[in-house]
Amino acid sequence: MTLARALFSPRAVALIGASGDAGKNSARPLRFLRKHGYAGRIVPINASRSEVQGERAYRSLAEAPGEIDHAFVMTPGESVERAIEDCGARGVPVATIFSDGFADAGAGGAARQQRLVARAKALGVRVLGPNSMGVVDVPGHVALTVNAVLEMDGLPAGTTSFVSQSGTMLGTVLSRGAARGLGFSKLVSVGNESDLGVAELVGLLAEDPATKVILLFLETVRDARALGIAARKAHAAGKPVVAYKLGRSQLGAALARSHTGALAGEDAALDAYFRDCGIVRVDQLETLIEIAPLLAGRAPPNLARTARVAVVTTTGGGAASVVDRLGMSGIETVASASGSPIIDLTMKATAEQYTAALDDLLASPGCDGVLAVVGSSAQFHPQLAVEPIVSSKKNAKPLAVFLTPHAERSLALLAASEVAAFRTPESCADALAGYFTWRAPREPAAAATVEWPRTLPRRGRLDEAQALGLFASLGITVAAHEVVAPPACAHTIAYPVAAKALSSGILHKTEAGAVRLGIADRAAFDREVRAMLERVPAARAVLVQKMESGLAEAIVGYRDDPIVGPIVLVGAGGTLAEIYRDFALALAPVSEDEAAAMIEKVKGLAIVRGYRNLPLGDLRALAKAVAAVSRLALVPGLPVAEAEINPLIVKSTGVVAVDALVALKE
Amino acid sequence: MTLARALFSPRAVALIGASGDAGKNSARPLRFLRKHGYAGRIVPINASRSEVQGERAYRSLAEAPGEIDHAFVMTPGESVERAIEDCGARGVPVATIFSDGFADAGAGGAARQQRLVARAKALGVRVLGPNSMGVVDVPGHVALTVNAVLEMDGLPAGTTSFVSQSGTMLGTVLSRGAARGLGFSKLVSVGNESDLGVAELVGLLAEDPATKVILLFLETVRDARALGIAARKAHAAGKPVVAYKLGRSQLGAALARSHTGALAGEDAALDAYFRDCGIVRVDQLETLIEIAPLLAGRAPPNLARTARVAVVTTTGGGAASVVDRLGMSGIETVASASGSPIIDLTMKATAEQYTAALDDLLASPGCDGVLAVVGSSAQFHPQLAVEPIVSSKKNAKPLAVFLTPHAERSLALLAASEVAAFRTPESCADALAGYFTWRAPREPAAAATVEWPRTLPRRGRLDEAQALGLFASLGITVAAHEVVAPPACAHTIAYPVAAKALSSGILHKTEAGAVRLGIADRAAFDREVRAMLERVPAARAVLVQKMESGLAEAIVGYRDDPIVGPIVLVGAGGTLAEIYRDFALALAPVSEDEAAAMIEKVKGLAIVRGYRNLPLGDLRALAKAVAAVSRLALVPGLPVAEAEINPLIVKSTGVVAVDALVALKE
Repeated sequence: MTLARALFSPRAVALIGASGDAGKNSARPLRFLRKHGYAGRIVPINASRSEVQGERAYRSLAEAPGEIDHAFVMTPGESVERAIEDCGARGVPVATIFSDGFADAGAGGAARQQRLVARAKALGVRVLGPNSMGVVDVPGHVALTVNAVLEMDGLPAGTTSFVSQSGTMLGTVLSRGAARGLGFSKLVSVGNESDLGVAELVGLLAEDPATKVILLFLETVRDARALGIAARKAHAAGKPVVAYKLGRSQLGAALARSHTGALAGEDAALDAYFRDCGIVRVDQLETLIEIAPLLAGRAPPNLARTARVAVVTTTGGGAASVVDRLGMSGIETVASASGSPIIDLTMKATAEQYTAALDDLLASPGCDGVLAVVGSSAQFHPQLAVEPIVSSKKNAKPLAVFLTPHAERSLALLAASEVAAFRTPESCADALAGYFTWRAPREPAAAATVEWPRTLPRRGRLDEAQALGLFASLGITVAAHEVVAPPACAHTIAYPVAAKALSSGILHKTEAGAVRLGIADRAAFDREVRAMLERVPAARAVLVQKMESGLAEAIVGYRDDPIVGPIVLVGAGGTLAEIYRDFALALAPVSEDEAAAMIEKVKGLAIVRGYRNLPLGDLRALAKAVAAVSRLALVPGLPVAEAEINPLIVKSTGVVAVDALVALKE
Repeated sequence: MTLARALFSPRAVALIGASGDAGKNSARPLRFLRKHGYAGRIVPINASRSEVQGERAYRSLAEAPGEIDHAFVMTPGESVERAIEDCGARGVPVATIFSDGFADAGAGGAARQQRLVARAKALGVRVLGPNSMGVVDVPGHVALTVNAVLEMDGLPAGTTSFVSQSGTMLGTVLSRGAARGLGFSKLVSVGNESDLGVAELVGLLAEDPATKVILLFLETVRDARALGIAARKAHAAGKPVVAYKLGRSQLGAALARSHTGALAGEDAALDAYFRDCGIVRVDQLETLIEIAPLLAGRAPPNLARTARVAVVTTTGGGAASVVDRLGMSGIETVASASGSPIIDLTMKATAEQYTAALDDLLASPGCDGVLAVVGSSAQFHPQLAVEPIVSSKKNAKPLAVFLTPHAERSLALLAASEVAAFRTPESCADALAGYFTWRAPREPAAAATVEWPRTLPRRGRLDEAQALGLFASLGITVAAHEVVAPPACAHTIAYPVAAKALSSGILHKTEAGAVRLGIADRAAFDREVRAMLERVPAARAVLVQKMESGLAEAIVGYRDDPIVGPIVLVGAGGTLAEIYRDFALALAPVSEDEAAAMIEKVKGLAIVRGYRNLPLGDLRALAKAVAAVSRLALVPGLPVAEAEINPLIVKSTGVVAVDALVALKE
């Protein structure tokens, strides 16, 4: 009995805590299994009844006859622990725990969960949950869930599988899909992920012959490394993975400790993470449900230029509602022979005209994808445009369809032909954008480890001179500087200079009065340093630095993100860029070419890319510096929590680090 | 017979070109009128048949008996002109023209349309269209349209009316509304708007007792002034107006002539226009359909602070999908007593618990609105949470409901109780955001006209000295300057100075080498000016200007927008701000307080608002300058096409205009 079989296709299931009261949640799994035609054995376990919903019930798992592949645990409190002991004793390989009160219920519950899972592991029982709504295998007629949507008749079977951190969403995607003819294969609610988590399930689905596309509803990412590996496995198996991830608006406030943190919140790091894993991220809930037919059987396009979409429609307004949003994703609408960006056949179009126009576009080398829009005829006259789409000459080119009216039968007709059809213009446009920005998983080149400079500590905060030293050790040019001791502060740096009070305890040096720039001569230097040391009595020494100037300022940062691991960031420097949150981010390390691609995405660096004939900056040197900073991810033990150069001055030749900040782990 | 009666409630309609062939579009109006129970007289006009679909037909309008209130014209080519003549002769007050080939078909068609409308006006016939799909009055059983969605049985009647520049959208909103129990009152397809346009229809609906909310689907705005008046009339009548307007992604490229134009595209101007008209703009098609019950009977909240929404749910994931998007619109989710931003009753909630939690929030002074989310139970167990919402103690506070599964019956249940319910989390969040940002129409204070300086021309482009003079005449401090003649160029401005070659023909002075900044002394001045005059031989004179510096640079612009009329803009100055398109925009003129509110929206001006303890700029002086520039809208005849100060230097006390550009109309 493999894990996958026990989980998705059990020959016998024990329903621990199955109720005979139809109004109770715990009565549902038995009812749903029957309703949806489960062919295996159902064994209700109920401490106080010998019959449940017409089925012979047993007081405990120990008394139940025959081999049990999967136990579904619904009982409250301590009985969950007993149920797991019973599973172990009976050799039940998988237990799905619906019961809550574990990690979902504070620190005490979390400790209880840890004990439970440790014991299950010792007993050889794999656990889904706790707080899981269960598992559904539509083609296999297994509806092992408490989700109320399973009251639905005739679940449509399909080849899309779904893993969700929200149990509710099982019902959401099933019922919304069913309403438009989109079927599912396997659906899993992972609950607290105490043992079986999203990553392992993606791995199982990657191996599942009945699954072609894998959808994820995520509230968090609990094991980014494992999910990355599973996503690559799915990619290798030709199965697209799509994620809807909550947290767009919580821009990592909790994680924002330094400037880098503030710029690059959790969510932007997740964007980079999903992209690198080859996972398509979608922002609208229905796009998650509707996108599957657009991706099924396809590989990431890895387009290196702007995507071009051609449009055929019977309604100008309907098509424009999709095209308008496509434009906001940077997708170009290709002009038709008529010069208009859309081919509007109007409501007078015959089926033959629609077919001819659509087949032309599908065959045309001038576009990367086709959008077909159908107006009011879609609801009651499918023969006019919907059926021509169904019978169009499909090829490798993606085809997305938007129907303007409420037209469920036409949506189902298209779904049955595996044509991607969308209920809203926004979902349609976003799905196309998701497809075109889809990339194959990044496979970082094997890189040698980077040695930590022997002179630097491996814990705590580095002072600025040490931080500059670390960056210099990575091969980055840093501004000429000397560390001098008060009161003499003798130095050999040519004026004008900057003076900074050295103290690893100060986070915002400028605000603390610990920095003076553009000091013109020795007299001014003495005056400024004296005043500075009065403001910052903790300073042990003074950093004297050559003043640097160039064409632009950049910020380059590194962080070992608690969720996705090491990330590198490049942004436009200065206060304004900080306000505009103008940066690009990738998982570290990156190559110079990858760094160059990041730099391209930073709007504010346009000023050194030839904007308004301004002089060009040395973007290759900037890319080298970004790649160098990213190599902090190759230091054994990952001692760096956060590191930042702000600003890194971009010159016409070369770049130079002026201000550096490095925080090591505690 | 009023226009409204003839248009929406005709006692008799003539169908000119009505076909007996059920497959033809021109057969539809007769079929739809019958199907939906039209009680008036139907008079088919068909040149070659005496009977159409069982109805006595006439060869021409002249032969038709009785009084006709409304003619629906479907015949092609020249026959449209004949039909209008016939309407005039018979005293038919309104003709809706479905036929196309007018302004929709190039310049020739536009000329034809102009002739047609002029003739109709002379004959006393009001025209809807050409290229109109018709008119529907659901409660009145008038389905005078070719839209195929009218094949639908049992249109639900309601109090929401709809005016659309896309005929298809009549069917779209009707059928999508019907699927969730949202009914409509009147629906109008305006087609080419040759005579009856969106503005006049909004005015009619403002007076219509059967209409409570007015929805608009707009591809363009053809008469912004008239629509503004009509929207104010609707507001005065307590009727919210909501617009979905295409064009989000076409950022005014065609209109972008100067920097101001490039920064402030057409769409941003329309945002300002809709806001000032009290029109709620929505970005998703379904939000347009679903928002009506949220706004019906309500006045704009005019909230001066961040809106706070409280949330009750049976599903954490489902609620989070709405809350996440609310956060992106800047709406705060109020923490519940538990400290969590949402009250998650989980799927174990009883109806009593749901009712109690919801009523608590509705009564609470701690929130401005309530979001209720229901998970899987919404589809088959409405008694658990949907019915408690229906029977909740509603009050003035807006309540928005999101149901996670496909649950049309529950949506209809809520719609029947006039509770705003939404099919997608995105539409739900956007509708709440639309409500909270809704403002009463702005009524600009009566302002005296502004006199045009006598010394300035009223046409063509002003040179920079003239432009500075214009701004000075508005009360704005401009940098000290003198206009001097080569070759001597004697001046009295203290060094360092800027020198600019004066020529109204140069648009981008810096790129043309017509500007030199920071000239330190007379020798450098002579050298620079000589070189400059060689580069710009067209220069008649040289502007010598005092160098100014301050805490920040701003851009202040004015444009007489071809669609919405005079607008004023304020943004952060400098190249980076231009790249980030960081500006706020309003219809001109604005008061100082309104200008101050605009300045608050400009992110980059944070650097003079106390960001990171940077010194404060004189924002009151900046607001005065913005208001002053906006008064160009009060110059009789509106001679200014575009005007811009870039930069306007913001100091700790005062502001000063350094660079000015003014283009007058031709």
